[in-house]
Amino acid sequence: MASAAPARTDDLLTRFRARRALTIDLATPLSDADATVQSMPDASPAKWHLAHTTWFFETFVLRDHVPGYEPFDAHFAYLFNSYYEAEGARHARPQRGMLTRPSLDRVRAYRAHVDAAVEAALPSLPAAAHNLIDLGCHHEAQHEELLLTDLLHLMSLNPTNPAVWPRTPQSTSEAATLGWVDGRSGLVEIGHNGTGFAFDCEGPRHRVHLTPHALADRLVTNGEWQDFVEAGGYRDAALWLSDGWAWVQANGIEAPLHWRDDWQQFGLDGLTRRDPAAPVAHISYYEADAYARWTGFRLPTESEWEAAAATVDPASGNQLDVAGPVRTLPADGSGLTQMFGDVWQWTASAFLPHPGFRAAEGAVGEYNGKFMSGQMVLKGASCATPRGTSRASYRNFFPPAARWQFTGLRLARDFE
Amino acid sequence: MASAAPARTDDLLTRFRARRALTIDLATPLSDADATVQSMPDASPAKWHLAHTTWFFETFVLRDHVPGYEPFDAHFAYLFNSYYEAEGARHARPQRGMLTRPSLDRVRAYRAHVDAAVEAALPSLPAAAHNLIDLGCHHEAQHEELLLTDLLHLMSLNPTNPAVWPRTPQSTSEAATLGWVDGRSGLVEIGHNGTGFAFDCEGPRHRVHLTPHALADRLVTNGEWQDFVEAGGYRDAALWLSDGWAWVQANGIEAPLHWRDDWQQFGLDGLTRRDPAAPVAHISYYEADAYARWTGFRLPTESEWEAAAATVDPASGNQLDVAGPVRTLPADGSGLTQMFGDVWQWTASAFLPHPGFRAAEGAVGEYNGKFMSGQMVLKGASCATPRGTSRASYRNFFPPAARWQFTGLRLARDFE
Amino acid sequence: MASAAPARTDDLLTRFRARRALTIDLATPLSDADATVQSMPDASPAKWHLAHTTWFFETFVLRDHVPGYEPFDAHFAYLFNSYYEAEGARHARPQRGMLTRPSLDRVRAYRAHVDAAVEAALPSLPAAAHNLIDLGCHHEAQHEELLLTDLLHLMSLNPTNPAVWPRTPQSTSEAATLGWVDGRSGLVEIGHNGTGFAFDCEGPRHRVHLTPHALADRLVTNGEWQDFVEAGGYRDAALWLSDGWAWVQANGIEAPLHWRDDWQQFGLDGLTRRDPAAPVAHISYYEADAYARWTGFRLPTESEWEAAAATVDPASGNQLDVAGPVRTLPADGSGLTQMFGDVWQWTASAFLPHPGFRAAEGAVGEYNGKFMSGQMVLKGASCATPRGTSRASYRNFFPPAARWQFTGLRLARDFE
Amino acid sequence: MASAAPARTDDLLTRFRARRALTIDLATPLSDADATVQSMPDASPAKWHLAHTTWFFETFVLRDHVPGYEPFDAHFAYLFNSYYEAEGARHARPQRGMLTRPSLDRVRAYRAHVDAAVEAALPSLPAAAHNLIDLGCHHEAQHEELLLTDLLHLMSLNPTNPAVWPRTPQSTSEAATLGWVDGRSGLVEIGHNGTGFAFDCEGPRHRVHLTPHALADRLVTNGEWQDFVEAGGYRDAALWLSDGWAWVQANGIEAPLHWRDDWQQFGLDGLTRRDPAAPVAHISYYEADAYARWTGFRLPTESEWEAAAATVDPASGNQLDVAGPVRTLPADGSGLTQMFGDVWQWTASAFLPHPGFRAAEGAVGEYNGKFMSGQMVLKGASCATPRGTSRASYRNFFPPAARWQFTGLRLARDFE
Repeated sequence: MASAAPARTDDLLTRFRARRALTIDLATPLSDADATVQSMPDASPAKWHLAHTTWFFETFVLRDHVPGYEPFDAHFAYLFNSYYEAEGARHARPQRGMLTRPSLDRVRAYRAHVDAAVEAALPSLPAAAHNLIDLGCHHEAQHEELLLTDLLHLMSLNPTNPAVWPRTPQSTSEAATLGWVDGRSGLVEIGHNGTGFAFDCEGPRHRVHLTPHALADRLVTNGEWQDFVEAGGYRDAALWLSDGWAWVQANGIEAPLHWRDDWQQFGLDGLTRRDPAAPVAHISYYEADAYARWTGFRLPTESEWEAAAATVDPASGNQLDVAGPVRTLPADGSGLTQMFGDVWQWTASAFLPHPGFRAAEGAVGEYNGKFMSGQMVLKGASCATPRGTSRASYRNFFPPAARWQFTGLRLARDFE
Repeated sequence: MASAAPARTDDLLTRFRARRALTIDLATPLSDADATVQSMPDASPAKWHLAHTTWFFETFVLRDHVPGYEPFDAHFAYLFNSYYEAEGARHARPQRGMLTRPSLDRVRAYRAHVDAAVEAALPSLPAAAHNLIDLGCHHEAQHEELLLTDLLHLMSLNPTNPAVWPRTPQSTSEAATLGWVDGRSGLVEIGHNGTGFAFDCEGPRHRVHLTPHALADRLVTNGEWQDFVEAGGYRDAALWLSDGWAWVQANGIEAPLHWRDDWQQFGLDGLTRRDPAAPVAHISYYEADAYARWTGFRLPTESEWEAAAATVDPASGNQLDVAGPVRTLPADGSGLTQMFGDVWQWTASAFLPHPGFRAAEGAVGEYNGKFMSGQMVLKGASCATPRGTSRASYRNFFPPAARWQFTGLRLARDFE
Repeated sequence: MASAAPARTDDLLTRFRARRALTIDLATPLSDADATVQSMPDASPAKWHLAHTTWFFETFVLRDHVPGYEPFDAHFAYLFNSYYEAEGARHARPQRGMLTRPSLDRVRAYRAHVDAAVEAALPSLPAAAHNLIDLGCHHEAQHEELLLTDLLHLMSLNPTNPAVWPRTPQSTSEAATLGWVDGRSGLVEIGHNGTGFAFDCEGPRHRVHLTPHALADRLVTNGEWQDFVEAGGYRDAALWLSDGWAWVQANGIEAPLHWRDDWQQFGLDGLTRRDPAAPVAHISYYEADAYARWTGFRLPTESEWEAAAATVDPASGNQLDVAGPVRTLPADGSGLTQMFGDVWQWTASAFLPHPGFRAAEGAVGEYNGKFMSGQMVLKGASCATPRGTSRASYRNFFPPAARWQFTGLRLARDFE
Repeated sequence: MASAAPARTDDLLTRFRARRALTIDLATPLSDADATVQSMPDASPAKWHLAHTTWFFETFVLRDHVPGYEPFDAHFAYLFNSYYEAEGARHARPQRGMLTRPSLDRVRAYRAHVDAAVEAALPSLPAAAHNLIDLGCHHEAQHEELLLTDLLHLMSLNPTNPAVWPRTPQSTSEAATLGWVDGRSGLVEIGHNGTGFAFDCEGPRHRVHLTPHALADRLVTNGEWQDFVEAGGYRDAALWLSDGWAWVQANGIEAPLHWRDDWQQFGLDGLTRRDPAAPVAHISYYEADAYARWTGFRLPTESEWEAAAATVDPASGNQLDVAGPVRTLPADGSGLTQMFGDVWQWTASAFLPHPGFRAAEGAVGEYNGKFMSGQMVLKGASCATPRGTSRASYRNFFPPAARWQFTGLRLARDFE
């Protein structure tokens, strides 16, 4: 939530427009109904993502910094606040799917209204408001990914297996043999280094001491995961954390989410063949941890991962460029491939404050800090992460049972 | 589910068309999203009602009686079967709201397709199929009412209080003084008498012995219910059944559903003033029973109510004629007013078989009989019941806590 | 709750002593722990039954009718009130098992104290108090049965299958061929006739009209039920009420409660062989109803059963005489055997008020009336019913899924 | 679970006897019922603790290392295994309170039998078995504390506020002014150093890098917590983690567990006056974290705490010496007081493996590692921790909402 250097106005305007345009593009294939239904309390309707990201600009930029601005609709502050307690009462999260009205069209009109007002006001806004626009853009990038993953979850519950996007030609690749790359050890620095935008929880930069270890040079694949399934991995209590084993049994878990029989999988392009060489996706932390134990290795810690990623281009890899189907980019050209893109990588680290972290004052201070319990850190980026928004210091986090995001894993090992 | 006399073909066609047209009319003001969302497991999306009623004709008439008929969509048998175990696996009821696809437009096309096929086939169909069309029409009339009440429930959860229909001018009437009309006593006959259509559970006709009693000549009003509220009726355990008291406390019940502060109420025409003279609506059996106890009177039994209604025109009263807002008709011209229309009337009787009842063979035999536990009988008709579908012998039933239907009460008393 | 004629004092004292003594006898084999644990919210600890029945006398007789009576322990009114709202706040039912203190010995002392006080006061008490003592004795008889069934439920959860009572020699009888006895039809009278004690809900006596039917001359046996199991009765949705089918599936029901593999069963005498000729016990209403449908017959209504039982000795049959194992008496000497004893018989009737029923004023008025929703009537008596407390008009009631009581069924059929 | 050096036999025997004797002493004031009831799924009956600790020795020592040993009771392996998946099926945890049999007396006999067998075999056992006895003693010490806290929870649900122990004279002390002591910073070593017994999760010893900080020189007191309550701390969402705020609202949390009105508190000595100078106890992690935020400080990390505790005598402070009421010892004689004893101290650290940790093979390997998700680390010791079993490297852990243990907090602060 801290922007180290104020953005130049014209650059900010360009980024604002691009950000807002991408979100709308992502929603293009959606009907009013597609955009309205909430598939579970953890997910939000696409319409809600479109409106909430707009509410963010309307509230923290227009309302707070543009004298005389009139809200587009008096109801929307109540409907589209997500969780900011300081902003007052709000619509209960599990009820978001009840809002058949306003319609998707009206939410689009809301976006256009707020976009115009922000663009008109931007040149004369103070630096603090510029920073909030910058924050709003990064905030919206996060919701672009959530819009896609929430939509995928919804569509996956439809017995007709609808394809939101056209199917893309699939290459039948073969996964490279797994190699190991030495990680950095001893005293290393991690955390955001102060250049460019970062969310509050990415800092302060600080030193950690790492023991000697190596990281796998690529992600675990569907083919490798299939071996785990066939070896009875989901039925062997000894491989699982106690909470994980209870979760497996209570929910009858037998495979990653969206796996279907006969090497099929469900995605936003409908039912397709599952590629054995592609990174396994839609697994929980519990599954990642059990798989690692089965191999005799372990998950990397956040610090190990972040230290290793410091020299990798975070805009590389299979990330989101357009609303259409995801594409596979060449590997990122270092010993470590797939550090960004394809899937978020579960780490062995809980989402807790870096030493010296203090949440900002006011409503925006609720951004990350208050979620620092019960969640694990994921690093990298996924095929649904808008390219250009990733950083080595970025801290994604989800509860250990979550798997509706594009989540996978990379192995790590200690030196004996 | 039994039709005593086969319907004449041209008459059946006329009724089929009218029935199908009304359903579509009711859905006219709905967006794709309005028609898709499920507000609770007990309610279904409007789109589902539109499709399920169509599936009924497609399955039991076209599939079973029209050689070579091809289903409109192979998925629909799974998606739009409601609860017929004999028809095989089906989409789980609480998941009906996940179906953003097929769209409302496609469901309309499904209706048109099946309508055309039924109309084309009808002249040459055997009598058994004619009876099934007749049954399907009555089945659809039931779903027309559910479509409205389920929609009302959904809209009531929208903090913006949307009006689906235009507001109608409200008369500020005054409720008549409550009078009493002697009921029939001794040996009387109830149950369907075999003339015209009736559902299976309405028969056989049989004798019951009734003790001397009287029925109130009108329904309990909003104004009278307000007195109950103000007298602390919702806070006095002594008035309530044990289950009812637990329900009041667990759910924080303080007034009928859809009552709002300051004499407002929510309906399909949005927020309006609550009329003190209008019948109270949207109360549970528990509330009806507690109110009756508070007055020192009681609810009528099904037999008492049905015996008294034998001479009342079931097409009278405030019932549904058009998709628009409900209208108030003159009272039905007997000593007992409001026997049909306005609200369904809770009785003191559980929904159990009449003596000699046996469910029909096959899937249609699942129509009513399997719901004969845990439900109470309601008699009459409501403002959302399509006029022409009511009968004195009709047995509506809901669990004692249900109140999203238009449900109210009429008092009864014993002779000392 | 109405006693038609005041009991003679010396007779009342005799009955009071016998009642109180039997309860204590039943608890003889129990340890402090056995008497303390609550196995589910629907069941109560034995200690609680011992104390609650005592609280009834202490409150409604001693407190209300003996000037200067001091409560044995000031806490007990709070701890041992069951559900009388008029008597003020009370310990939450699901928490009854948390009361390791007072100990069983102290509860025994409580009983002795109250017994002495009642006996001392009895001669000089007014008739109203005598009636309350009479009521308290019948109340305690009901709790004697519950003490045994609740205890059985608790012990059944113990993997060591403890035997509370010594095993009794088992006769290997053979069930008689099922015969049918015509029931009474036309206008008949049921309900308590005013002679001797009855609970309030057993009246008023009133006329009902019955259609021609017959009743099975004996109960359904374990052997017959085994046929139902083997025929797939628990897996055929068509046999079940909708609520019953949901219950079967949610709970994985495959046989009566306490049935164990290999023709074993669990009881208060531990694991024993299941007798094919003995009446099936520990079934829910849902199971009884499904079984009847499977046979092509049905359950009797309460009225049918009661009319037929009018001439049967209610003290006959296999009922409870001593704290030890139940014994099998010769059949009751009419065409209908096993009308009383062995198991309570589920009827097809909901527990609703007889015509003209009004609950008594005050706390004792809460006795039965407030439970008149969601429950089905059972008639007769069981092997755990203290002999001498049964009546044809007695109305036992439980929710349709309950099966920890000794519950079974008798078939009925309509004349074609 | 690793013992660095084999214990001398005679010393081991002494410790075994003392350990086993203390457990029995703790149970002295308990009735059979007190020892049987389970107050919640997280807690276990006292009888279960007595038997489970015995099962540990019977299984891992006698069964595995004493040829020909016959189990005391064939049922007990099933009943008293806690969570060792490798040891096979076991009684479900939430059902532990259903075991009214075996009785407390029989469990005492079980203990005596196993004690005698262990003592007889001990001299001739191999070193591996000696290590298991050592482990079993430390395991039993943990259960001694749980026996007391589980018992306290049970008694706290009894409306009669029973006192298990005699009341002790209370000093009315005054809390010292809070001071700050610099913590160690830079590279420090933590984790067990290999001397003496430690559980597996306490190692390996490893280096961490700490930023400059200070620790409060004493625990937060009841008086200070009362200020937090009165300042509205429990009603200000801004102070709470998101999960914590949801927990506060769902459970109506307003004060520490066992606080009662008017400066009273409930404990094993019944209702007593709450001492404002005593450390606050029975708070959750959520509460500790919110309190720290309210003060502007924070919780210490595990590393900070452990580094500071390295020079403090872990046998100092208010820990458990006898079965009677806890006593207050003089402070531990360093700048930091109350590092051990009184209450476990919540840290800001999740319970995750130390770098290089690997669980042991076999059943005992399930000891700690499989609980490494969803829990926070607590350090120190409490008034219910048997003196002599504490270590700076000891890692206690509980979920963030747990508060039935003696849990409190010490503040920390960063240097600006």
